[in-house]
Amino acid sequence: MSAIPEDLLPDAQRLLEAACRPFPGSRKIYVQGSRPDLRVGMREILQSPTPGEPPEDNPPIPVYDTSGPYTDPAVDIDLERGLAPLREAWIEERGDSERLADFSSEYTRRRKRDPELAHLRFAHIRTPRRAKPGRRVTQLHYARRGIITPEMEYVAIRENCLLQALREDPRYQKLLRQHPGQPFGAMIPDEITPEFVRQEVAAGRAIIPANINHPELEPMIIGRNFRVKVNTNIGNSAVTSSIEEEVEKLVWSCRWGGDTLMDLSTGRHIHETREWIVRNSPVPIGTVPIYQALEKVNGKPEALTWEIFRDTLIEQAEQGVDYFTIHAGVLLRYVPLTAERLTGIVSRGGSIMAKWCLAHHRENFLYTHFEEICEILAAYDVSISLGDGLRPGSIQDANDRAQFAELETLGELTKIAWEHDVQVMIEGPGHVPLHWVKENVDKELADCFEAPFYTLGPITTDIAPGYDHITSAIGAANIGWYGTAMLCYVTPKEHLGLPDKEDVRRGIVAYKIAAQAADLAKGFPGAQLRDNALSKARFEFRWEDQFNLSLDPERAREYHDQTLPKESHKVAHFCSMCGPKFCSMKITQEVRDYAAAQELEAEMRRKSEEFLAQGGEIYRPR
Amino acid sequence: MSAIPEDLLPDAQRLLEAACRPFPGSRKIYVQGSRPDLRVGMREILQSPTPGEPPEDNPPIPVYDTSGPYTDPAVDIDLERGLAPLREAWIEERGDSERLADFSSEYTRRRKRDPELAHLRFAHIRTPRRAKPGRRVTQLHYARRGIITPEMEYVAIRENCLLQALREDPRYQKLLRQHPGQPFGAMIPDEITPEFVRQEVAAGRAIIPANINHPELEPMIIGRNFRVKVNTNIGNSAVTSSIEEEVEKLVWSCRWGGDTLMDLSTGRHIHETREWIVRNSPVPIGTVPIYQALEKVNGKPEALTWEIFRDTLIEQAEQGVDYFTIHAGVLLRYVPLTAERLTGIVSRGGSIMAKWCLAHHRENFLYTHFEEICEILAAYDVSISLGDGLRPGSIQDANDRAQFAELETLGELTKIAWEHDVQVMIEGPGHVPLHWVKENVDKELADCFEAPFYTLGPITTDIAPGYDHITSAIGAANIGWYGTAMLCYVTPKEHLGLPDKEDVRRGIVAYKIAAQAADLAKGFPGAQLRDNALSKARFEFRWEDQFNLSLDPERAREYHDQTLPKESHKVAHFCSMCGPKFCSMKITQEVRDYAAAQELEAEMRRKSEEFLAQGGEIYRPR
Repeated sequence: MSAIPEDLLPDAQRLLEAACRPFPGSRKIYVQGSRPDLRVGMREILQSPTPGEPPEDNPPIPVYDTSGPYTDPAVDIDLERGLAPLREAWIEERGDSERLADFSSEYTRRRKRDPELAHLRFAHIRTPRRAKPGRRVTQLHYARRGIITPEMEYVAIRENCLLQALREDPRYQKLLRQHPGQPFGAMIPDEITPEFVRQEVAAGRAIIPANINHPELEPMIIGRNFRVKVNTNIGNSAVTSSIEEEVEKLVWSCRWGGDTLMDLSTGRHIHETREWIVRNSPVPIGTVPIYQALEKVNGKPEALTWEIFRDTLIEQAEQGVDYFTIHAGVLLRYVPLTAERLTGIVSRGGSIMAKWCLAHHRENFLYTHFEEICEILAAYDVSISLGDGLRPGSIQDANDRAQFAELETLGELTKIAWEHDVQVMIEGPGHVPLHWVKENVDKELADCFEAPFYTLGPITTDIAPGYDHITSAIGAANIGWYGTAMLCYVTPKEHLGLPDKEDVRRGIVAYKIAAQAADLAKGFPGAQLRDNALSKARFEFRWEDQFNLSLDPERAREYHDQTLPKESHKVAHFCSMCGPKFCSMKITQEVRDYAAAQELEAEMRRKSEEFLAQGGEIYRPR
Repeated sequence: MSAIPEDLLPDAQRLLEAACRPFPGSRKIYVQGSRPDLRVGMREILQSPTPGEPPEDNPPIPVYDTSGPYTDPAVDIDLERGLAPLREAWIEERGDSERLADFSSEYTRRRKRDPELAHLRFAHIRTPRRAKPGRRVTQLHYARRGIITPEMEYVAIRENCLLQALREDPRYQKLLRQHPGQPFGAMIPDEITPEFVRQEVAAGRAIIPANINHPELEPMIIGRNFRVKVNTNIGNSAVTSSIEEEVEKLVWSCRWGGDTLMDLSTGRHIHETREWIVRNSPVPIGTVPIYQALEKVNGKPEALTWEIFRDTLIEQAEQGVDYFTIHAGVLLRYVPLTAERLTGIVSRGGSIMAKWCLAHHRENFLYTHFEEICEILAAYDVSISLGDGLRPGSIQDANDRAQFAELETLGELTKIAWEHDVQVMIEGPGHVPLHWVKENVDKELADCFEAPFYTLGPITTDIAPGYDHITSAIGAANIGWYGTAMLCYVTPKEHLGLPDKEDVRRGIVAYKIAAQAADLAKGFPGAQLRDNALSKARFEFRWEDQFNLSLDPERAREYHDQTLPKESHKVAHFCSMCGPKFCSMKITQEVRDYAAAQELEAEMRRKSEEFLAQGGEIYRPR
């Protein structure tokens, strides 16, 4: 039996062609770090000159790039082998971890032995790496010891996006003009240095999710003094979708700008699907291990045990999952607080744990075993995302006692995780009316000691199923501005069905918009460069540049084509909105020319008067 | 030659079928006012009961309805005759206006004589009505004199949306729970009375755009102590689209929730297109008269004259246009303030006037003739929307001196308009980063003496052409929350092309979301009713009710169908997101049942212990 899923191949090929197509007018660039194997991938968007005498050169605009090797034409992509393990040497060099002879999870070993699964299994599985006994291998551990890891340097270069170099290039001077931000409590320096990254990680204000078993990952950082990040969710369910579709969504998500990706699969073959995803992912992968643990007990929450959950943590940690959502704050005594809610408990993890607590009349085992969880996570550098199992599921239930009681417990757990050098972020809601959004951030920062906040939306009104990428982008932009470090996207299918590829794209773009709006409001250095470049291109009718500089060049071009499909229209000094005569931008250009001519004329008149005043002789005696 | 456009008919028929289809699960209702001919149309969304023993009755949810007679199956729609003139008697009764023997505009008379236009012309044109000499017929005039007009009563009933009646019905008690808002300076009463409407209009804080030549209009109000409104733009241009398409967009716009509509046509047959639109519009129509004036001088701004503009004002006022955007604040001395901008002047009206000023070295004739403009407007009750000709066209140009200088002049003009009893609102930007949005509202309220603010977006980042309905819905929700009275929608085609029907729908829904998010944040009474009803339906798996309660029932159902098309799935207790086993809402219901059982058990145990403590005898001696 072939180790390669037979039905994956033709589709994988098709996928590669679409997802590896470089963005129009762009090229992949790499910024060299302090060591030869530290090269930070970015995308550079090229621009055409502004016509004139002489033409004005418009410089390339570098942009943060989450697409990894998929958009580098020089890289040979092979989904069956996975991506190159770019961090392998960094992890190896630290000498604090070792490669195990076999997987530690009982479940993993069973899956590996099962011949029925051979056709689904990823072919080139490595044995896992784990911290040597007594060692901790987390970025937080290194940061606290004053060590700047290659991951930290990578992140610093990435966040800076060449900013220092650009500042010295006169072509960027006008484009780099930026409004001062209103960052609330955030303290964003003019330059993100590796040392600043280390300090933020050491303080717990930022995390670099980077499992030592996911060396393929391009390091990124989540913290409110950095760019606002976007997470996307994928995952098959018992009802629909296949491994191949999930891998396709991963590559698609990276292409459009997803900074991390959560695999929320709940259907069959979770284990095998995850292996394909992690091996092919340049971005950190998060999971909710309780979903898989529940699969293992046939969907009966009350049958869950610590032992099954523990084995699941190890199983996933050894596959390379970079962060786990763990609903350890759903305490027995908080569950009755949800009884009077309009929409009860809407978090899947939250409702599973609530049911377990009630069924056993015992405290949540994720809470009682929290220190053991941290010990496991510290051995692989899996970050913990403390789940908000009691988040509100409607505007009516926002900011209530159940939600905030859990948040206070998440603060308590944050401190415990930090004692174990485990990196932590905190999940937040959900559904919140606009004027109550800020309270969520303020309370999270206070109760959880500035650990990074990671929110789902929030959705700001419940009346628009089918458009919840918009209801929530509104909340997301605001919560990002107020200090949330990462936004979990919502697609148009939220509340209605499983998103397809097109929904994923629309959800991501809506959230890239929210993140960018937040970065501008925070005043993140260099954030306005792309806005300024695009606006200048727009004003100068450089249509192609306008498309290429946009978050979704294909969509922008497609919309323009719908009314003005001809190639000649891409250089036309008008669009179909106003037609050729009424274009305000054209008129403004004329106004400028006119004003300049007026000024020239006045200057001539002055000179002429001066000349006459001096006697009107062309050759004046000295 | 037929007076009916030959090519309009078949399409008009098709249009009627689509646009007049009542919303699913809804019925048109009318709330009777104080006089027989004052009946306020609304939509009531019916709900199914919650299954149980006994089933719980879920009451109908009334919603504000902009669709007019188009969604009333009892009304016979005839686009060629136009809508019924519902306000005719109200206007007549006031006795302060008279029907003229002929149109006052030279241009109108010429168009009417032109046999070439017969096939485009609306057949049933009425002669116009105008104030009797020396009279003013504006809602502001009546309000200041203490008169509550039928228009004011209509508006009060409409804004209240049956709230008083519902409060007394116990079925609504849970659904009417609402979070207190954060309305900034707004003072929103618990009940909107006709007298409150009068006071707000009298104070200039709200306007009721309602030209006496547009009796078909269903009155609505624009002010920050009322529901946030949404304007949509349509209009053909020299490049594309026809009369029939524009009428189709009007009906479409009303269907999806557009509160007012601006006809921004710049192409041929502006006059005839407008007649078709006004006669068939249940919502106020706005225009930018300078666009048509420019057509009349073959697109040469410098050839514009006060006389041509004046005739255009009268032409449009006598057709029934309800508000005019007039760029009277673009002063000669402000134009050079835009020279250093990244994107100069991007308002069409603004650039036209700037060019005129420079060409003639004279002050803007809209400014110098402003009192005459007001006199014309007061004779028909055309409201004035003071245009922001110098609004920023990019994030970089936001909140600059040019923009704010013009805003200060708009304040000066507001006072003059008010002296003439003309209703005024103030236009705002545009492109503004999130953290600078509030300054726009605060400054507008201060400089323009609380005249209602009417903003375009604002767009909060420039990098997403193709998604500007989203970049701007973010700004719109915020600016609405801060006190903006009406939001001018932006479609996905903004900056790229002329929106089609589907773009209009997507733009409107994005803006209805922004308006609703703002109303919730302001704490407008009853605003949360629909959110709560939808969330309850969602939690109880009443899928049909969830679809029907949403802003776009068709889209919600379509998305649900994509993964679970069967009819049986519409009553299923799960969706394709999580599948049947993992549904958190299902689990929560089980948690509640379990908790209730536990409580019951504890109660039984208590009773049993009590019984035993009392001696354990069933029949206790008295």
